[in-house]
Amino acid sequence: MAIEQSADKMSLTRSIVRYDREAFSEIEDSIVTEFPLTIYVNGEEFATMVCTPTHFEEMVIGFLASEGVILFYKEIASLEIDESKGFAYVQLANGKTMQPAQYSKRVIGSCCGKSRQFYFQSDVKTTKTAVSAVTLSASQCIQLMKNMQEESTLFKGTGGVHNASIGTPEELIVSRTDIGRHNALDKLYGYCLQNQIPVRDKVLVFSGRLSSEVLTKAAKIGVGVVLSKSAPTNLAIELAEDLNITAVGFIRGQSFNVYSHPERIYP
Amino acid sequence: MAIEQSADKMSLTRSIVRYDREAFSEIEDSIVTEFPLTIYVNGEEFATMVCTPTHFEEMVIGFLASEGVILFYKEIASLEIDESKGFAYVQLANGKTMQPAQYSKRVIGSCCGKSRQFYFQSDVKTTKTAVSAVTLSASQCIQLMKNMQEESTLFKGTGGVHNASIGTPEELIVSRTDIGRHNALDKLYGYCLQNQIPVRDKVLVFSGRLSSEVLTKAAKIGVGVVLSKSAPTNLAIELAEDLNITAVGFIRGQSFNVYSHPERIYP
Repeated sequence: MAIEQSADKMSLTRSIVRYDREAFSEIEDSIVTEFPLTIYVNGEEFATMVCTPTHFEEMVIGFLASEGVILFYKEIASLEIDESKGFAYVQLANGKTMQPAQYSKRVIGSCCGKSRQFYFQSDVKTTKTAVSAVTLSASQCIQLMKNMQEESTLFKGTGGVHNASIGTPEELIVSRTDIGRHNALDKLYGYCLQNQIPVRDKVLVFSGRLSSEVLTKAAKIGVGVVLSKSAPTNLAIELAEDLNITAVGFIRGQSFNVYSHPERIYP
Repeated sequence: MAIEQSADKMSLTRSIVRYDREAFSEIEDSIVTEFPLTIYVNGEEFATMVCTPTHFEEMVIGFLASEGVILFYKEIASLEIDESKGFAYVQLANGKTMQPAQYSKRVIGSCCGKSRQFYFQSDVKTTKTAVSAVTLSASQCIQLMKNMQEESTLFKGTGGVHNASIGTPEELIVSRTDIGRHNALDKLYGYCLQNQIPVRDKVLVFSGRLSSEVLTKAAKIGVGVVLSKSAPTNLAIELAEDLNITAVGFIRGQSFNVYSHPERIYP
C-alpha cells in the first residue's frame, strides 16, 4: 500500500479499504504516526518511549525530570537525537550517575496516589504538593479548553492523540500533542525546564481522562490547576485532594465539574 | 466529600461541584474506580497493575501469559487475590521459576512492531503470526461493534473506560471493561486460557484506538481479526500486516475502514 509522510511527521497517508453505503473502495487516509525512541543515559539503555515524533528533546528532558534522574535542565551535559535510528543519547553533567535500582520497579498502566502509597521510588522524590495561589474564573476554564481544542488540528484529521497545554488563566503559553498521554505532558515539562518557565502560577489543560498517573505528572510539573475535557478516576481525585491540586473535568460547552479544591475557581 | 461504592465496584459516587448555566451547585456524580493490584510471582514482586477492580484472576492470568511467564493456565499452581490489600500471589507449577532478566527491560507507552523490532524479550517469544481462516461480512463487523457498545453501560455513566470483547462472526462470547486498555485485553486473554476457548477462529472487538501495543496483545491472544471503533497508528497497521491480522477501524454507523488483510472481510 502507498505510504506518504506528512510534512509535520505527526501523520502519514496510506491507501486503505473503506466500506460505506454497502460498497468497498480504496481511499487515501491520514494515519497518526507512532515512533519508538530509545533513551540511553551515560551509555546505558534507560527506556523506550513510543511517541508522536515531534519535540524529542523536550520529551526526553521532561521524562528524565519526571523520573527523578534530573531536577534541572543544567544537569544534562549533552543530549543528541539520532532520529534515523530512533535513539536519544544523554550525558549527565558533573559526573552525575544513574542508580538503576531506584528505577527498576515495574509498574503497569499507572502509579497511584499518596492516598494509598506511591509505587515508584522516584515518585516519592519528585511529586510535589502544589503551593499555587492561582485562581480562575469559570469562563477562563471554558475559554482555555476552547483555545486548546481550536489549536489542535491533528485530532480532527486522524483521531486518537492527546493534546496538552500550559497557560496562565488568560492564555495558553505552549501546547504539545502526542499519541501517549505521558509524552504530551513530558514535552510540556521539558519545555518549561528548558525555557525556565515558572509553573507554580500556571494551569495545565489536557484533552484526555484524568488518571492517577496524569495527576502525578501534573504534581511533578508543579501546576496548581488541571483542566480536562474528560472524566477523572477516584484515585486521581484523591491524589488531587492530597496534593492540593484543583481538578476540573468534563469541560464541555458552558459547563464543567470541579472534583477537588474548588476554592481556586470563582464564578 | 461523601463517597459511596457502587455494587459492581467499577464506579463510586462522590459529591462534586458542578458549574452549569453560570452557577455552581453541589451534585452527586458517578466516578470510575482505579485500583492498584501488585502481583507477586513465587514470592517476588513482579508488577503493579492499576485497573478497574473486576475479574482479577483473569487479568493476572492473561497478563502472565502476555508477558511470557506462562503458556497455559495449568502452569499456575495457585493464585490468591487479597483484595483488601491489593495483592495477588501466584505460585508457578512444577518448580517453574522466573528469569527476571528477561522482563527487566523498561518500555514506556507501548512496544512496537516487527517492522522495526520487538522491544520486549518476552514479545519475541509470545507474539504469534495469526493463522486464522475466519472471515466476516461487512454487516457482521458493524453488528459486533454495536452489540459490544449496547452491552457496556459503564462508559455512558462515567466516561473513560475501555471495552473489549471476544466473539465469533455471529456473536460476542465474553466482554470485559477496564480503565486500562491492556487490562481489558488481559482479562479476555485470561478468560480464554482459563476456559480453554480456542481463539484462532475468533474476533477481537475493542472500543479504543489501535496502537502497536494493542495489536501486539491481539497477536499474543491469537485472534485473526481486530475490530475497533477508533483509529489505528501506522505502527499498528505495519504490525497487523506482518502478523497476518485484519485490522478494521472507525466502525461507526454503517461504515468502517479496513487497514490490513482486507481478504477476510466480504460485502
